Amino acid sequence: MSEGEESSLFKTRLFKTLEGVDDALKLIKVSLENSVLDVVEVDIRSSLHYYSAEDVHALQDVPNYDRSAVDGYAVISNDVISSSITNPSILNVVEKIYADSSYHMLKPLNHGETSIVYTGAPLPPNADAVVMFEDTKADGSNVQIFRPVSPYQNVSRRGEDFQKGSIVVEKGTLIRPWHLAALLSTGYEKIRVFRKVRIGVISTGSELTEKWQDAGVINTTKPLLLSLIQEEFCEGYDFGTVPDDVEAIRDRILFALKDMDILLTTGGTSVGATDLVSDAISSIDGSKIVFHGVRMRPGKPTGMAIVKGKPLFILSGYPVASFTGFEVFVKYAINLLRCSKPLFYPKVRAKLARRLAKPVGVKAFVRIKVYQLNGEYFAEPLRLTGSGLLSTLTRGNGLLVIDEDVEGYDEGEMVEVQLLEWVI
Amino acid sequence: MSEGEESSLFKTRLFKTLEGVDDALKLIKVSLENSVLDVVEVDIRSSLHYYSAEDVHALQDVPNYDRSAVDGYAVISNDVISSSITNPSILNVVEKIYADSSYHMLKPLNHGETSIVYTGAPLPPNADAVVMFEDTKADGSNVQIFRPVSPYQNVSRRGEDFQKGSIVVEKGTLIRPWHLAALLSTGYEKIRVFRKVRIGVISTGSELTEKWQDAGVINTTKPLLLSLIQEEFCEGYDFGTVPDDVEAIRDRILFALKDMDILLTTGGTSVGATDLVSDAISSIDGSKIVFHGVRMRPGKPTGMAIVKGKPLFILSGYPVASFTGFEVFVKYAINLLRCSKPLFYPKVRAKLARRLAKPVGVKAFVRIKVYQLNGEYFAEPLRLTGSGLLSTLTRGNGLLVIDEDVEGYDEGEMVEVQLLEWVI
Repeated sequence: MSEGEESSLFKTRLFKTLEGVDDALKLIKVSLENSVLDVVEVDIRSSLHYYSAEDVHALQDVPNYDRSAVDGYAVISNDVISSSITNPSILNVVEKIYADSSYHMLKPLNHGETSIVYTGAPLPPNADAVVMFEDTKADGSNVQIFRPVSPYQNVSRRGEDFQKGSIVVEKGTLIRPWHLAALLSTGYEKIRVFRKVRIGVISTGSELTEKWQDAGVINTTKPLLLSLIQEEFCEGYDFGTVPDDVEAIRDRILFALKDMDILLTTGGTSVGATDLVSDAISSIDGSKIVFHGVRMRPGKPTGMAIVKGKPLFILSGYPVASFTGFEVFVKYAINLLRCSKPLFYPKVRAKLARRLAKPVGVKAFVRIKVYQLNGEYFAEPLRLTGSGLLSTLTRGNGLLVIDEDVEGYDEGEMVEVQLLEWVI
Repeated sequence: MSEGEESSLFKTRLFKTLEGVDDALKLIKVSLENSVLDVVEVDIRSSLHYYSAEDVHALQDVPNYDRSAVDGYAVISNDVISSSITNPSILNVVEKIYADSSYHMLKPLNHGETSIVYTGAPLPPNADAVVMFEDTKADGSNVQIFRPVSPYQNVSRRGEDFQKGSIVVEKGTLIRPWHLAALLSTGYEKIRVFRKVRIGVISTGSELTEKWQDAGVINTTKPLLLSLIQEEFCEGYDFGTVPDDVEAIRDRILFALKDMDILLTTGGTSVGATDLVSDAISSIDGSKIVFHGVRMRPGKPTGMAIVKGKPLFILSGYPVASFTGFEVFVKYAINLLRCSKPLFYPKVRAKLARRLAKPVGVKAFVRIKVYQLNGEYFAEPLRLTGSGLLSTLTRGNGLLVIDEDVEGYDEGEMVEVQLLEWVI
């Protein structure tokens, strides 16, 4: 379905003033100033894709001792400085040291002494380098060294990976596989993270069906949002679909809000007469509509309210318009709650495959198909309108964000596209 | 720890011939030619991040009828062609049609007739356009139309989102939120997908500990791999750690292989004398080492075998070297099994912050810190060596892949970096 719903909305009702996108974001920030997510402690092995609730400093030097990087002989480098094939140094072998040997049990080297060390083994006190096996020859309780080594050659220095006290993971970091491994390496078993953001979704609309039917409209917007929530490493909760009835909507909002950090509603503006979700919100004591109606396309009817102290986003019933509202506003709120930066969208500079015009004063989110041709990237705009056309997302692979004051771009102009998927 | 382990390996034992990376990939492809993953049927609402096992064609036109994109009056456009404020067309209102009205119950329009339609409502037979409410005035059982509409104005055409039979999702596609929504919209409830790839991990090494200890080496490689597996939308299974004992390794491999699609081993080359994992594999009837030792850095000791018909990857015990082996070879095998393309790495062109030299004949995977300065991207190479240095992954945010025949790059040269995380 087309943008028509939205244009009619603007002409017939609602939205005395439309908020600009940036102003709307500022309003969200102010509204959530005192909102803090609970912090929980999780086992590091289970911490993938949580967000760190604090700067984490290394508990230990990593490695915790100077350790051998090879299999060979730990030496005092000065002892072997003049070694050669024709004039080997002869050292006395003191002991064998393994990666799991305890440093505290090691015999310190005296001049003229050496210990066999295997990869990862701590160097004994006084040793400062390792000669590899292939540059040596065992000789009873002695060994011949054929080559000099410089200080710390073949040695992993104490603290070269992480120094005790240095930051391993910053507050608000999404824990990726290497963070998890690094945290374990510095001696942690647990980490304090923000609890996953809980986001409830309520659909409104008497015409909506859960299964495809010849009559009615199958609700694709709710499963779309629940999946987007999952991709943001949050927990999505389905609070069902309510008919076009203010009281039913209000009751469902109050029920859902109890355990949620954020609530999303979809639709409630399609039957015509009034904006049912706004009416439902307004009927709740102490609620406040922060903004409703944004100068963006698609997604003009997007709104945000604070109800019982929690953020509620009023999203379109149309899947692509709700997608845009989620991308721009809900993600922003999620990241505020967990002190994180937004997930990175890869960007590509591409040549616009055809002219693209848009109304001035409106921020546009155009679905784009990016493709490669003769080594060049091209961006084909799918449709500026069509807030219901899921095919603009499945056939496209990117988004072009065009600012309010831009009228559009000519064919052949270079634009920067945010990629939602890879480019084939 | 440094690359030392690997260099000593090459000098003292193993690896009569080293495989090039591309040749090794070809060998994997040939080895897995007849490997097919089971196909399972899942509810579309639960299909996020599965891979489609077939091309899926739309079961229905979407929309399934011409539907109104606005609230207004459905008309035969020809009837209102000369409408104006001063000379409105007068039409007789037949019925009201809602989004959930059944098309089959609708009264066809005769000339001079109109029906009220709400957004999403099917157009009655013979109607071909919709006049918005604001361009009309109700007048008893009639309505005055003040404006002409062109054919299909304010109409979402049947099939404009998806035409029946057109491809919604191709075989091997990773199901993202919009695919899931689109599949639901065309009438599907279930989809056939590849079962998640099951990947077992066995660590070998008598020196390894599960918890940080002053002596010994905490095993960070296994949790790293299990997390990487999860990020590839596969199921990871922890088959524990076995000591440096050929029989113990062989028994664990045989036990783990039963229910796994792919098996990974880590380490087994650090105590010196022999390559225990290779020996364990060779002791299994009908097993075949496909390659072992690759001209890459880090990750030279990486290998691949077929055991009991299943792929087993021999990875380094060092986290960064095992990471590279996973990135290059294991991911490739995963994607072969599920007929998918590799997940997209965003790339950025950046100016090399300092000179970078590497041995010719070796493919290098250099960890890079990409940053922005005065609007330019810079790439700072962290360390070419250091297969144990997790900090090169946590401090870096990208990988620079340098081909075998390149000697390196000068400071200031432009290079293309694969981003593992966003650029701050």
